[in-house]
Amino acid sequence: MTVTPPEFDDAFSARLAELFAWRRDVRRFRSDPVDPALVKKLLALACLSPSVGNSQPWRFVLVEDAARRTAITENFRRTNADALADYDGAQAVNYASLKLAGLAEAPVHLAVFADTETSRGHGLGRRTMPEMLAYSAVGAVQTLWLAARARGLGVGWVSILDPAEASAALDVPADWKLVAYLCIGWPVEEHDDPELERAHWQARGGLTDFLFRR
Amino acid sequence: MTVTPPEFDDAFSARLAELFAWRRDVRRFRSDPVDPALVKKLLALACLSPSVGNSQPWRFVLVEDAARRTAITENFRRTNADALADYDGAQAVNYASLKLAGLAEAPVHLAVFADTETSRGHGLGRRTMPEMLAYSAVGAVQTLWLAARARGLGVGWVSILDPAEASAALDVPADWKLVAYLCIGWPVEEHDDPELERAHWQARGGLTDFLFRR
Repeated sequence: MTVTPPEFDDAFSARLAELFAWRRDVRRFRSDPVDPALVKKLLALACLSPSVGNSQPWRFVLVEDAARRTAITENFRRTNADALADYDGAQAVNYASLKLAGLAEAPVHLAVFADTETSRGHGLGRRTMPEMLAYSAVGAVQTLWLAARARGLGVGWVSILDPAEASAALDVPADWKLVAYLCIGWPVEEHDDPELERAHWQARGGLTDFLFRR
Repeated sequence: MTVTPPEFDDAFSARLAELFAWRRDVRRFRSDPVDPALVKKLLALACLSPSVGNSQPWRFVLVEDAARRTAITENFRRTNADALADYDGAQAVNYASLKLAGLAEAPVHLAVFADTETSRGHGLGRRTMPEMLAYSAVGAVQTLWLAARARGLGVGWVSILDPAEASAALDVPADWKLVAYLCIGWPVEEHDDPELERAHWQARGGLTDFLFRR
């Protein structure tokens, strides 16, 4: 079947650039629920992401059980306390003041794993770079994030976790690697600058800091 | 300064879904050049991606030197020959028939690294999951990919490489980890299904294959 590809015009590209600019890591959520049909829609879109060898290694786990959510929240609390102990002086004071997760408020908890032993894709493209499976799951997170933001939903990526403990708390297969633990919900506020920049933790550089030629 | 966030309407979300559906891993490029200003525009957009602790660990290397490009192409050729040797029978015949990179044709070669020792971000969010730095670079690749496709540009991610040899050929700092080697150019054709699905290598599953609840 022949399908005519869509034409994306300059106005769309400009709008897309606004989406990139206003996508934020959100840690302050309203408690209103998110329509489960919308969550499924976002996950279906995430499945359109690229994956190595078309392996589709993303495994999405909606964490609904209160005890499991509590275990993740406690995991974060302990891991974050350990992290704070690494800083001294003014930096420790700043770190302690940061809000680094919205686990208590977010109506949706989504854990994203990569199935490191999936037969899908028959190993193509991951022989010398097996980390491509995790990278494919990361691409799905970024797709979901953009689709969510376009609908006004906020997403926060929590990486201040002991991943082995999180996997145990969620009772997933041993071959699944935790890639992301996401909080999803309606944001309290909107910004076009990162919260860590506003909090004077880390400013953004310009392209010249990151571009090299060989 | 107060900035009013943009409103993204349903029409935009529908268009964005089309962008996700028509983003493809492209290995067949026309030889026409890509305007360097467009490449820089895409890289600047990629810098709007999320990064752990706002660490911005992405390091973009435009590979322009013919000898370095040849080294990467040879690296791919050897790595791909090794990979072929892992398959037998009909699968080996199918693998050998696949076009898995457009290195010879693509006008733009872009290597994307993660700086695993960057001081940016002051270690935040990567203490227990140091792989978050590489994941942040992956997010930037996905952002660039979507921005490129919106402008009709194709991107192909080559992971059939020996990453240590590639890093040596590009003479980058020892702490930079190769995350992606991208071919960028104007595609010969457009599809809304993955090339590996059309070639009967690996079909796509549905969301029910990938969604779990706990």
